[in-house]
Amino acid sequence: MSATSATVTVALEGDRRYDIAIAAHSLQNLGAKLTEIGLGKKSKKVLIVSNPVIYKHYGETVATTLKNAGFDAISLILPAGERFKTANSLQKIYDAALNHRLERSSVIIALGGGVIGDMSGYAAATWLRGINLIQVPTSLLAMVDSAIGGKTGINHPQGKNLIGAFYQPSLVWVDPQVLQTLPTREFRSAMAEVIKYGIIWDRELFDLLAQCDRLDQLRYLSDDLLHTILYRCAKAKAEVVAKDEKEGDLRAILNYGHTVGHAIESVTNYRLFNHGEAVGLGMIIAGAIAVDMGLWSAAEQAQQVALITKTRLPQTLPADIDQAAIIDCLATDKKVEAGKVRFILPTAIGQVTLSDRVTTELINQNLRKILA
Amino acid sequence: MSATSATVTVALEGDRRYDIAIAAHSLQNLGAKLTEIGLGKKSKKVLIVSNPVIYKHYGETVATTLKNAGFDAISLILPAGERFKTANSLQKIYDAALNHRLERSSVIIALGGGVIGDMSGYAAATWLRGINLIQVPTSLLAMVDSAIGGKTGINHPQGKNLIGAFYQPSLVWVDPQVLQTLPTREFRSAMAEVIKYGIIWDRELFDLLAQCDRLDQLRYLSDDLLHTILYRCAKAKAEVVAKDEKEGDLRAILNYGHTVGHAIESVTNYRLFNHGEAVGLGMIIAGAIAVDMGLWSAAEQAQQVALITKTRLPQTLPADIDQAAIIDCLATDKKVEAGKVRFILPTAIGQVTLSDRVTTELINQNLRKILA
Ligand SMILES: NC(=O)c1ccc[n+]([C@@H]2O[C@H](COP(=O)([O-])OP(=O)(O)OC[C@H]3O[C@@H](n4cnc5c(N)ncnc54)[C@H](O)[C@@H]3O)[C@@H](O)[C@H]2O)c1
Ligand SMILES: NC(=O)c1ccc[n+]([C@@H]2O[C@H](COP(=O)([O-])OP(=O)(O)OC[C@H]3O[C@@H](n4cnc5c(N)ncnc54)[C@H](O)[C@@H]3O)[C@@H](O)[C@H]2O)c1
Ligand SMILES: [Zn+2]
Ligand SMILES: [Zn+2]
Repeated sequence: MSATSATVTVALEGDRRYDIAIAAHSLQNLGAKLTEIGLGKKSKKVLIVSNPVIYKHYGETVATTLKNAGFDAISLILPAGERFKTANSLQKIYDAALNHRLERSSVIIALGGGVIGDMSGYAAATWLRGINLIQVPTSLLAMVDSAIGGKTGINHPQGKNLIGAFYQPSLVWVDPQVLQTLPTREFRSAMAEVIKYGIIWDRELFDLLAQCDRLDQLRYLSDDLLHTILYRCAKAKAEVVAKDEKEGDLRAILNYGHTVGHAIESVTNYRLFNHGEAVGLGMIIAGAIAVDMGLWSAAEQAQQVALITKTRLPQTLPADIDQAAIIDCLATDKKVEAGKVRFILPTAIGQVTLSDRVTTELINQNLRKILA
Repeated sequence: MSATSATVTVALEGDRRYDIAIAAHSLQNLGAKLTEIGLGKKSKKVLIVSNPVIYKHYGETVATTLKNAGFDAISLILPAGERFKTANSLQKIYDAALNHRLERSSVIIALGGGVIGDMSGYAAATWLRGINLIQVPTSLLAMVDSAIGGKTGINHPQGKNLIGAFYQPSLVWVDPQVLQTLPTREFRSAMAEVIKYGIIWDRELFDLLAQCDRLDQLRYLSDDLLHTILYRCAKAKAEVVAKDEKEGDLRAILNYGHTVGHAIESVTNYRLFNHGEAVGLGMIIAGAIAVDMGLWSAAEQAQQVALITKTRLPQTLPADIDQAAIIDCLATDKKVEAGKVRFILPTAIGQVTLSDRVTTELINQNLRKILA
């Protein structure tokens, strides 16, 4: 076990600045940390929101550390899964907040992956117009992505994340140890986002990943490498968010691989690929387009594909996929303004550019190249 | 008819700064104004939210001016009244936003009183994590209070305004002409808030009101006086909000008369007094307490009571009112932290102070004084 620990600060202005603290076996110290950052002075009330699997593994540790630090915590266990990221689950959080009599200075703790994090974050943003929020991400995706940066929300029956708010947590508390129980497919899927940070922001991270023999299971990663991955990804996202909190051009680069990725997820009815798998495919397409447009070298695109392969993420699309539907889907993406699809394209490992000059022809051509 | 028009700027930082524009007969110019402030460049879509009464009077004017300016507007008519300020109505706004395919650069227009304004504002805050919001207040209360300052929200079945967000509009468009159709009881109730601004912030406004013979109906106010009232109240609220957006100590002064007022509303089951009437009573009590504590002169308190009387707002409580319940209610007010009730007390006309040293004894004593 490595004793490594690190802190990344999300440098927003004034009292909206907060830390992402990464340390193995730190879950049991969360209560003391809350006291350290000034919570519990006016109100001792805490609402922990989690799901059954995660709470079974880590609920007691969190409840105990809070109790030891003098907090009055209750837990709300919501059903697991994206299909429960709804107004109905949100209402349950509100009801628990009401019954536990949370005040403005009370705390909501999101103990879980991105689903619990987004939903609890949104509840914290809107209950009494905003109470304190602590993100305790338990999935790799939540640690490197969703718990950081303040996007919170729920789904509308007819679309993902349509309802939400920008609301920053007071702390992101990362204990890499909890990843031991994360299912392998979830691990791999999140590795697509890790590779994403390598391409868009952090060549050193990319190179570190390139040196590994296998990236398809957590057990092939040393504690040190895992720590470094968590640290560098958090740092990348924190830097982007601090410079551009609300989806200007910079923050948009976080959507690398996501434009086509979302279309692939949607056209295959969210059944064939999970999010990270689709993003991996989206990055392969975006990289190929960049090469075709003369923006990126074929050698670096090959390196990107090699990393995706080493993570055992899919590299091909079903031969009978509806390409026309993918193109249609791109055109109606909610990020499209005035009809133009904006692509994020690599120019070098660690660097991307925005382009609205990608032709349908070019997209189709590169989709065809990876049909199984 | 007076040709007077005026603009108050809510001086928040950067692109969050916005204008409150006050001008008689300006409703028909709203479309052109939206274009002027840069809306409609990326998306032409507008969703107008209103209620049946208000829409009957002013819907067509708004729809027409938008159409003339090239916008693609649809209207959503929600049932009138506080009891419809719910998650259910909110869902209807979301559904309309989805069906009309609002994008991030589209616009929601709140055409109505505080109920429509709070709800539509909250929908605009949370749809796609925030789209453009225009407040077109039609009640006196919305013009001088609720449309300004960015508090938005809905009620929870068990409490008012428990769910919400701080979200500033891009523009507040005030046409005093629409007040012609406002019911008299609504007018009087809002006058309590007008008097409030005189006491907490603006002695000149107070003096102007003091010079009038009658304040109990709109028709006793000249166009000029009405304009001045709207302007000075908007200015007062804008100044307070610009200095303290999120309920620090300064913004708290806007709750003058509201602490006891809320308790009175609640103990009488929201049936006997409407909001402004209860606030009027709350101001009488707060003023009397301030006098008893030696903070305020009895002469000025008499002037305050005279204004409330001239507005024909109630000055007495039912003899059988449950005083103990009022005291209980004060103790559990959501603004109470660590058990202390904080009073806003006048020290001079135009100036207040915060005090947490008001005793239960003193409250009871002054409640007794105004029993009918
Ligand atoms: N807010 C943002 O910026 C942002 C960014 C990316 C994604 N998201 C959102 O995040 C969500 C996806 O997040 P996710 O991938 O974490 O999904 P998730 O929350 O559904 O978690 C994935 C699965 O792993 C399980 N799990 C999580 N941690 C575990 C652990 N330590 N041990 C055992 N099982 C564990 C969960 O129960 C779940 O079944 C989506 O809703 C997406 O919209 C948000
Ligand atoms: N956001 C804030 O800062 C803030 C501040 C104070 C109050 N509020 C909220 O505002 C709400 C009260 O606002 P309100 O007093 O405007 O109530 P309201 O919106 O219910 O309007 C009062 C009545 O007047 C009618 N009406 C409004 N304008 C009219 C017009 N021009 N002609 C004819 N009828 C008209 C309405 O249909 C309604 O029946 C409450 O929900 C309260 O919580 C919010
Ligand atoms: Zn993603
Ligand atoms: Zn009020």
